[in-house]
Amino acid sequence: MNRFLRPGPIRGFLLDITGVLYNSAEGSDGITISGSVDAVNRLYKESRVRFLSNESTHTTEKVVAKLTRLGFTLQQSDVITPAPVAADYLKERDLHPHLLLHPGVSSYFPTSSREANCVLLGDAEHEFSFHNVNMAFRALMKMKRPLLLSLGQGRFYQQTDGPTIDIGAYAEALKYASGCEHVVIGKPSPEYFQYALDQLGCSSEETVMIGDDIISDVGGAQKFGMRAIQVRTGKWRNEWEKHPIVSPDLIVDCLAVAVNSILDAQQKQ
Amino acid sequence: MNRFLRPGPIRGFLLDITGVLYNSAEGSDGITISGSVDAVNRLYKESRVRFLSNESTHTTEKVVAKLTRLGFTLQQSDVITPAPVAADYLKERDLHPHLLLHPGVSSYFPTSSREANCVLLGDAEHEFSFHNVNMAFRALMKMKRPLLLSLGQGRFYQQTDGPTIDIGAYAEALKYASGCEHVVIGKPSPEYFQYALDQLGCSSEETVMIGDDIISDVGGAQKFGMRAIQVRTGKWRNEWEKHPIVSPDLIVDCLAVAVNSILDAQQKQ
Repeated sequence: MNRFLRPGPIRGFLLDITGVLYNSAEGSDGITISGSVDAVNRLYKESRVRFLSNESTHTTEKVVAKLTRLGFTLQQSDVITPAPVAADYLKERDLHPHLLLHPGVSSYFPTSSREANCVLLGDAEHEFSFHNVNMAFRALMKMKRPLLLSLGQGRFYQQTDGPTIDIGAYAEALKYASGCEHVVIGKPSPEYFQYALDQLGCSSEETVMIGDDIISDVGGAQKFGMRAIQVRTGKWRNEWEKHPIVSPDLIVDCLAVAVNSILDAQQKQ
Repeated sequence: MNRFLRPGPIRGFLLDITGVLYNSAEGSDGITISGSVDAVNRLYKESRVRFLSNESTHTTEKVVAKLTRLGFTLQQSDVITPAPVAADYLKERDLHPHLLLHPGVSSYFPTSSREANCVLLGDAEHEFSFHNVNMAFRALMKMKRPLLLSLGQGRFYQQTDGPTIDIGAYAEALKYASGCEHVVIGKPSPEYFQYALDQLGCSSEETVMIGDDIISDVGGAQKFGMRAIQVRTGKWRNEWEKHPIVSPDLIVDCLAVAVNSILDAQQKQ
């Protein structure tokens, strides 16, 4: 199985969370993907691992609490989500955002009385009302140099009842309407992958990304010099077997297959 | 003033409505733009005129009733809006839409029990909830060849309290998320301009379009071989004086200036 990957040792793993460890569902914790709990446990024992998510509906703490309820054993410091990274980004650049976020991450962003010089967009879900989207648009139109920061740019994610439109679509809507500049904080931004590698302590060449999003996870990681494995769980679509833009290094049924095939092969060497 | 237009007689006028005849306001009829009532009256006396709108929140009948309340005298048969044109388009092609529309135009589209083979998007305004947008996205994802029809593709329109995000932004969101094909029924689609010229009984060369949207009105009409005048009312933005893509044949303060300068010049000849 491992033969489809480019040669060279794999020292570190970056794992997407939603659609790889579990499938999300509205109003509940979601459903653990079969084999993923054991796969994470094996990674913690035999390799280096970090969890690189574009989740922007809950704090890292809540994400970890949910994963724990779903049966996973992992460290909060190993989980990377874009909201706290964005909070640092804003501080470093003296940016004062108009916020359109899920209430679950608003604690990262203290309210400010300063006039907004950017819009910060998260996966606001039901907060993506016409009124709220229009207020974000109007905030952009008031800026001399309209700037949109988005916590990822995913097309959709998979919920148990079907695919669900994601933040990237709303970022496109605001870009089209306002002509703003757009900065992505999250996958597939190279800065976000670099942040994760720094945490992992591995180079891109010796790291593999495993995800369910062929653009943000697989394509983004490959552009950054990593090998990348597409899993057939989460938002996976059959038509991606022959995707026009991205060719994963490997396509496997689920996380457990990816982890076991790589670690088994390394043990044989 | 007329000297900025390409030479050649002007026999017909196409007028955008919102932002040219009046400025819209949420919850009221809006405000008549100064001089436009007289300009329309003069056009009816001295030339040929049709009203070509991308309005998709009310039936043509309601649009005319509102304009009448605002002081205009015009014929309902002279007003073209995209919803009834779209209804014919669907019938001719045996298309069964999933609807995401303003309730004001739903009467054009009888409900059907057939499985949707396209999504029809209007300026749904407050109906653009996350739930409704996601349902339209899911409908597209179920189609073998996802097809989106939108009643125009405007970036924004001007309300009395500020610019307001328009249907084109939501069309971009759905395209980005689903990868669907997109057909525009409304300006700047060439078919829609041709439909208007057929009603007007003029060729594109002898017709001038007057509008406040530099892309949909001015750019669209110019691509179709018309001369096009940008008015500094409605959604007009100062930065459009040097727009990177579209150079209007003429930029004037308002409809009355455009109409009077052209008709005065013709009388002198």
